[in-house]
Amino acid sequence: MATSASTFGYLGPRGTFTEAALRQLPVAQGADFLPFDTVASALDEVRAGRITAALVPIENSVEGSVSATLDELASGDALVIIDEIAIGVTFSLVAPAGVSLNDIKRIGTHPHAHAQCRSWLAANAPGVAVIPTMSTASAAQILIDGGAPYEAAITAPIAAEHYGLVELATGIGDNSDAMTRFVLIARPGATPLPTGADKTTLVLFMRSNHPGALLEILTEFAVRGVDLTRIESRPTRRALGDYTFSIDCEGHIDEARVGEALMGLHRVCSDVRFLGSYPRHDGREANVRLGTTDAAFAEAREWLITLRTTNENR
Amino acid sequence: MATSASTFGYLGPRGTFTEAALRQLPVAQGADFLPFDTVASALDEVRAGRITAALVPIENSVEGSVSATLDELASGDALVIIDEIAIGVTFSLVAPAGVSLNDIKRIGTHPHAHAQCRSWLAANAPGVAVIPTMSTASAAQILIDGGAPYEAAITAPIAAEHYGLVELATGIGDNSDAMTRFVLIARPGATPLPTGADKTTLVLFMRSNHPGALLEILTEFAVRGVDLTRIESRPTRRALGDYTFSIDCEGHIDEARVGEALMGLHRVCSDVRFLGSYPRHDGREANVRLGTTDAAFAEAREWLITLRTTNENR
Amino acid sequence: MATSASTFGYLGPRGTFTEAALRQLPVAQGADFLPFDTVASALDEVRAGRITAALVPIENSVEGSVSATLDELASGDALVIIDEIAIGVTFSLVAPAGVSLNDIKRIGTHPHAHAQCRSWLAANAPGVAVIPTMSTASAAQILIDGGAPYEAAITAPIAAEHYGLVELATGIGDNSDAMTRFVLIARPGATPLPTGADKTTLVLFMRSNHPGALLEILTEFAVRGVDLTRIESRPTRRALGDYTFSIDCEGHIDEARVGEALMGLHRVCSDVRFLGSYPRHDGREANVRLGTTDAAFAEAREWLITLRTTNENR
Amino acid sequence: MATSASTFGYLGPRGTFTEAALRQLPVAQGADFLPFDTVASALDEVRAGRITAALVPIENSVEGSVSATLDELASGDALVIIDEIAIGVTFSLVAPAGVSLNDIKRIGTHPHAHAQCRSWLAANAPGVAVIPTMSTASAAQILIDGGAPYEAAITAPIAAEHYGLVELATGIGDNSDAMTRFVLIARPGATPLPTGADKTTLVLFMRSNHPGALLEILTEFAVRGVDLTRIESRPTRRALGDYTFSIDCEGHIDEARVGEALMGLHRVCSDVRFLGSYPRHDGREANVRLGTTDAAFAEAREWLITLRTTNENR
Repeated sequence: MATSASTFGYLGPRGTFTEAALRQLPVAQGADFLPFDTVASALDEVRAGRITAALVPIENSVEGSVSATLDELASGDALVIIDEIAIGVTFSLVAPAGVSLNDIKRIGTHPHAHAQCRSWLAANAPGVAVIPTMSTASAAQILIDGGAPYEAAITAPIAAEHYGLVELATGIGDNSDAMTRFVLIARPGATPLPTGADKTTLVLFMRSNHPGALLEILTEFAVRGVDLTRIESRPTRRALGDYTFSIDCEGHIDEARVGEALMGLHRVCSDVRFLGSYPRHDGREANVRLGTTDAAFAEAREWLITLRTTNENR
Repeated sequence: MATSASTFGYLGPRGTFTEAALRQLPVAQGADFLPFDTVASALDEVRAGRITAALVPIENSVEGSVSATLDELASGDALVIIDEIAIGVTFSLVAPAGVSLNDIKRIGTHPHAHAQCRSWLAANAPGVAVIPTMSTASAAQILIDGGAPYEAAITAPIAAEHYGLVELATGIGDNSDAMTRFVLIARPGATPLPTGADKTTLVLFMRSNHPGALLEILTEFAVRGVDLTRIESRPTRRALGDYTFSIDCEGHIDEARVGEALMGLHRVCSDVRFLGSYPRHDGREANVRLGTTDAAFAEAREWLITLRTTNENR
Repeated sequence: MATSASTFGYLGPRGTFTEAALRQLPVAQGADFLPFDTVASALDEVRAGRITAALVPIENSVEGSVSATLDELASGDALVIIDEIAIGVTFSLVAPAGVSLNDIKRIGTHPHAHAQCRSWLAANAPGVAVIPTMSTASAAQILIDGGAPYEAAITAPIAAEHYGLVELATGIGDNSDAMTRFVLIARPGATPLPTGADKTTLVLFMRSNHPGALLEILTEFAVRGVDLTRIESRPTRRALGDYTFSIDCEGHIDEARVGEALMGLHRVCSDVRFLGSYPRHDGREANVRLGTTDAAFAEAREWLITLRTTNENR
Repeated sequence: MATSASTFGYLGPRGTFTEAALRQLPVAQGADFLPFDTVASALDEVRAGRITAALVPIENSVEGSVSATLDELASGDALVIIDEIAIGVTFSLVAPAGVSLNDIKRIGTHPHAHAQCRSWLAANAPGVAVIPTMSTASAAQILIDGGAPYEAAITAPIAAEHYGLVELATGIGDNSDAMTRFVLIARPGATPLPTGADKTTLVLFMRSNHPGALLEILTEFAVRGVDLTRIESRPTRRALGDYTFSIDCEGHIDEARVGEALMGLHRVCSDVRFLGSYPRHDGREANVRLGTTDAAFAEAREWLITLRTTNENR
């Protein structure tokens, strides 16, 4: 398949929530979309320069972080997040035309989707078996390909559209507020300009696993007035109890407070991987505290330079 | 199946790494073992009092935390961890008798196992397709039941033994140091006595999601000289960016320093769920710092009481 | 002079600001007053049980702490502060009857008083020499005794009254808001009951002079929600750079948050000297933060005890 | 008296410990010395450019800080400390030739000297009255001028030499390790170069007197690995309980860690007054912690600049 410079990859197959998110992403309008089997393969294509960017899930309000995304971003050639979007997760029960609810003995879906639709299933499909599949979209795909060991699937609404299936029921998730957040990944060199409502993502590697290390790291942020919005520990793969920290903080790398916090982390960590500064999906503007604005940093620097030079005629 | 008071559940099916760990656990010797499909169903049986305890995986040095276990322990009726064990994760390529490496076109295994055996597969089975299964043990089970869409499976060595399969290759994991840690879960009322090398597990629910909340929590531990060994954020399921923290710290609830830290957390958190104090699997003794021993706490209390009573004749 | 159980000592001689403060102190009404030459001699009489209590200055809003008082309280047999009062410091120019401003060539006063009246002197008595004396009251005393090397004195208004001198000018201090705070010292055993607007005074001796020691101490207070209102370093007399800290904090020793902070300090310091809990002179009620009320501490303790006992049937 | 550009002032009169210290100060060798009655008058002459520098006491290991010096440096036109020296404080009993110990009924000295010689006086001069004077040197001066209300004085050994008095006893202080530290004050523009064993002096004015202000300030130092060696609170003269902090920290303003700490303080304080970076009197080299060397700061800055520019082609 030929891909142009404006091809956006996503975690497939066609009909996933990721594709639904990509369709809503302003920057992706008019681009070609290309599904990938795994987060790793999508990101490798970005690294290789064969696609412009890739959209992958990073966090779900019910299931938590997507480890595959965190781990892929934390290793290999550098990539950066250049945008994010969050969409509501709504589930539909879908089946080929002609199948009615009464015909269904078995339903195929991903275990996470199964977990999020338990109440509806108990009330509306008691006694129906649920067969695990690798993704919700693949449950639909297999259904349409034929030979599926089930008569219906639980999927994103978009999957019904893609695979020509009929929605027998919609909004069947137990938690109607469930959200998934997706990040758009590109090669370094395209950090968006600051908007005043930005976020910065980092991976921190500890110099040593001493007890106070996390407290030390949090203090580097706090002392520059930079708030965290997410912190996630991930194993280093070296030993049990040996972690890195995946962190989102408010603000943009071009801000002085964020820059000084990054330098402080660089000094106390064995490594800091910068994963991008980009506009927040919720547009919430940062509350920059007194004494931590760019102007306050600039003024402090001028004051120091004056002190140093005033005292230097020696 | 009849279960006795000394029945230990585990995450099945038969032949999982969890079963291998349970067989090594001293306290489980002589007990009946009972596999469960899911962590949730095993813990529900403990809660219902139908089994003595259940062993479930909580953390892997390569894959990270087991979310299902963290989330099941954080909600529902109270349970406590009463023991832990960590075992090395070694993978074998297994097949029915008569199948040789050359006969294999497809291999069934769990995606995590697949991810951990990539190098060996690239070198020794190039071109062989890998078919995802729900667990490594179920890959073996399906193989022996017949009708499997693959000729061999990657599993724990114990699975070969259980299902009467032959090990074609052993130790095929890329990371020979990979470990998984398992916790033994029981109903409250059985906290083991302090050994001097203990751990305490907690789930902390934030009063509000203010930026300094995590720094505040870490300070409650630090000021009593209690070191953390694990910290994991988990979504509250209410909204994106709203977390609880799952924490392991050194020490036993019966120690004064741990007790005061717990009370401090109880005062600053909206809720603290105590998930047990139990001996560390590695037997590493706590380094109790000057001024934080039980004796130091007792002496400080006596001093305060004397001060208060000396000054009370009024 | 015979002294009864209700004799209150004060830093004399007669006519000092301390005497003026003592006259305003509700608890001293009706008692005998006895001046002492030095803070040390007054406190020694309290220690010996020969007087009920002694009022001494501890802090002035212009000159700072009174070292003699801090050092006397920090050593020797234990004493406690049981009350405090702050009064405005107003200066008068006083002289024997018949002396007018024009007759004055030299003025006697204490150097601190001189420093606080410079502007008035420059404007109203240019060219007049100022002769240092040991206290403002002694300047008046010498003037009335005869043989003083000056014609007038700068004193507290009360000194004019005592020594039969005439006030030639009043309110001549440069800073009309200047205040001095005085503390009433007694033997242990008379701590006043909590009022909700209390203060506690401590002297902290460092275990070692490590760089983080002060940060560690402040954290012990902060983590229990106890605010400091004064901190003063004093030399240990052992070596330059070796300090103790004299501290006032909000709250009463009978409060749980203050008690736990005191115990924490006792554990991390080499010694903690309790110098009393007493009502604030300004009556400002403590702002007890969420989670640090006595009820919150009691609830946390009950919760811990329940956890410990629930888990103890082993 | 004509003064040259190389005139060093000091706290007089002649014969003070300050003069003894000045005579030992390498940079003062060969200069003219000029005594001043008060710290204020000496510093005013430095400000006016009429003398090169002035040596004044700042701290005594027994008595604590010298408030007059702290307060003079904290207000008025800017001055900086360019050197420091500490000398042992040893006291002598001095008298005019022909006076023997038995002839002495009264001794003149400063109250601080009196306080430090109590044991010797009790053992060797019981019943002798001690008459307070404004300084130890002035006690000697008055003695030699005639008309002194005492027969002998307690002074620095240097005073005997100056005033032609005889030392009847030497080393009579109770604390043979007592030290006083003196600072050499000049106009801005002469900060000594870094030596690796430097100190920096600051006065910090709080933005507001909120409870956490001091903790916040200490954290600004700690996070850059800068240790404090002295902290002293001084009243602002506005109200009781309203303080500034006079601080000495390790390191030199030209060091990156000190520079960033200063900028941090400038951002969180209402004002920061820089009072000089200068070699420590004890020559103790700074222990610059991992990650806080100039090289670590420079490397972090280069890393940040690379990150920012790499990502800026937009």
